[in-house]
Amino acid sequence: MSIQPHILIYSRHPEEFQGWLRDHGCPGTLTSASTPEAAAAVSGDIDVILCGRVPADVLECAPRLRWVQSMNAGIEDLLVSAAGRPDVVLTRIVDLFGGPIAEYVFAELLARVRELERLRAMQARREWEHFICDTLAGKTLGVAGLGSIGREIVRKGRAFDMKVYGLSRSGDHAGYMDRHFVSDAWVDFVRDLDVLVLTLPLTPETDGVVDAVVLGALPSRALVVNVGRGRLIDEDALIRVLLQGKIAGAVLDVFAQEPPPADSPFWTLPGVTVTPHVSGPSTVDGVGRFFLENLKRFLQGDELVGMIDRQRGY
Amino acid sequence: MSIQPHILIYSRHPEEFQGWLRDHGCPGTLTSASTPEAAAAVSGDIDVILCGRVPADVLECAPRLRWVQSMNAGIEDLLVSAAGRPDVVLTRIVDLFGGPIAEYVFAELLARVRELERLRAMQARREWEHFICDTLAGKTLGVAGLGSIGREIVRKGRAFDMKVYGLSRSGDHAGYMDRHFVSDAWVDFVRDLDVLVLTLPLTPETDGVVDAVVLGALPSRALVVNVGRGRLIDEDALIRVLLQGKIAGAVLDVFAQEPPPADSPFWTLPGVTVTPHVSGPSTVDGVGRFFLENLKRFLQGDELVGMIDRQRGY
Repeated sequence: MSIQPHILIYSRHPEEFQGWLRDHGCPGTLTSASTPEAAAAVSGDIDVILCGRVPADVLECAPRLRWVQSMNAGIEDLLVSAAGRPDVVLTRIVDLFGGPIAEYVFAELLARVRELERLRAMQARREWEHFICDTLAGKTLGVAGLGSIGREIVRKGRAFDMKVYGLSRSGDHAGYMDRHFVSDAWVDFVRDLDVLVLTLPLTPETDGVVDAVVLGALPSRALVVNVGRGRLIDEDALIRVLLQGKIAGAVLDVFAQEPPPADSPFWTLPGVTVTPHVSGPSTVDGVGRFFLENLKRFLQGDELVGMIDRQRGY
Repeated sequence: MSIQPHILIYSRHPEEFQGWLRDHGCPGTLTSASTPEAAAAVSGDIDVILCGRVPADVLECAPRLRWVQSMNAGIEDLLVSAAGRPDVVLTRIVDLFGGPIAEYVFAELLARVRELERLRAMQARREWEHFICDTLAGKTLGVAGLGSIGREIVRKGRAFDMKVYGLSRSGDHAGYMDRHFVSDAWVDFVRDLDVLVLTLPLTPETDGVVDAVVLGALPSRALVVNVGRGRLIDEDALIRVLLQGKIAGAVLDVFAQEPPPADSPFWTLPGVTVTPHVSGPSTVDGVGRFFLENLKRFLQGDELVGMIDRQRGY
């Protein structure tokens, strides 16, 4: 590997990233592209790609390519694009989105328990009437997926004196939860939850895992929060339990189809909050720093951070 | 002291408290009153009073009275009412409101940085447009008053990876802050704050302590959150700096006059949130448990929790 790698930045707005990396002393040659055609024109020399969503073509026409760094934490699409390049190392962002995503989750939870909409309406009417709000403290929070994002939500749940349950495949960090469940114990996991937060990666095992059975096992007071991937949930089953009042509501930042179609019931169902995939933003600064650190490791032959296990799917 | 004390519950709705205490095995004789006249009729026998706001008359016509437990954390009014009874022990609620008040503070902070109103408006228009929110992480939180309420706000600020400054008279717990300031260092304390939260008791020293000078020293990005007492702030000065855009906004749960008059600028000033003193609710259950524990100590001759130092003012 040359100490002056050829790096392609492939995204919708690659110039921002290129400017940031140049200003922060990124070694090597930086090239930008936002279309497969533009990428094809430079691909012969490319050693490294930093990218958002990327078509398979871009990876397949780059014979020297050795490493792809995704700008995202969820990379189910990259696994498909890179299927024809098993020789290429893939990495994703880790330890960057946990803070912002946990802030999103607790902003939405606190807005509900502390009745902010009611308070705003009272202020608009210049109305002063004391009432007693609910509290997060004492409620039971279930976090499905205990990677860096899930663990940050657990940490903040602890600070709010919630009871915290976790579900994950590996059982790592299980000791940090009040109770830990493995991936085939979904019904037991959700049975007592006030809040279910999904942070799982989308893999063949997790596709549609929150189905009618799991949703049916939730208490009627429960709120479902999805900051993972839309397809983790059987959306039709979710709409049914919401319509039937079998759960209290849902906060959805991700959808099987984004944006959800204009006639999707989610936009208007009572108790449902829809946000445009804003919970964990890939900021230029955050992604830039992560990539630069990983690039140093790459050039020194050290193990990269955020290595994707293609078999496992994340 | 008889092991069967005569207890008067004096508040606007004393029956709820009386019912709770009876159901939870409170020893002694329980009497309720919500007017001075009703209290006078029973006051000859009373050993203990559990009360919200209470007139001086009620305390002065009870010759056997030895202890008054307030239902509140802030007790500047009780100090006035009890001035003629220096022989009576006064206690206030401590360690009960920290959790709810900190939830209130972080609900309001997160709603602002995560732009919940913008997101709700987008959902109403079925609009899907990605944008990058600000984060609490990295911002500087200043907490004035480091009693059980202030410390709970500090704890949650830490969980959100904020830099935390504290101001207090005693300097206790100073080591838990990134920086600690004593009570005469207000200007230095506020100079770099993104958020100033007031949890101080109202005493002669703190009356109007957040004045034009302190407000003028805040950065223009700063938000002032008052969950202590309205009179901690010079409200006219606050209105001026808000009108001049010298600070970003205010979240006010307490006011010098409650409710604020209908023509108060606070109701409509941009950047100002008004709530009807809901941050730290005196719930029947919370107050009941606190009183019952303290009553046990009282009957055993042990030191009470939440002892008020009349000289200090809290």
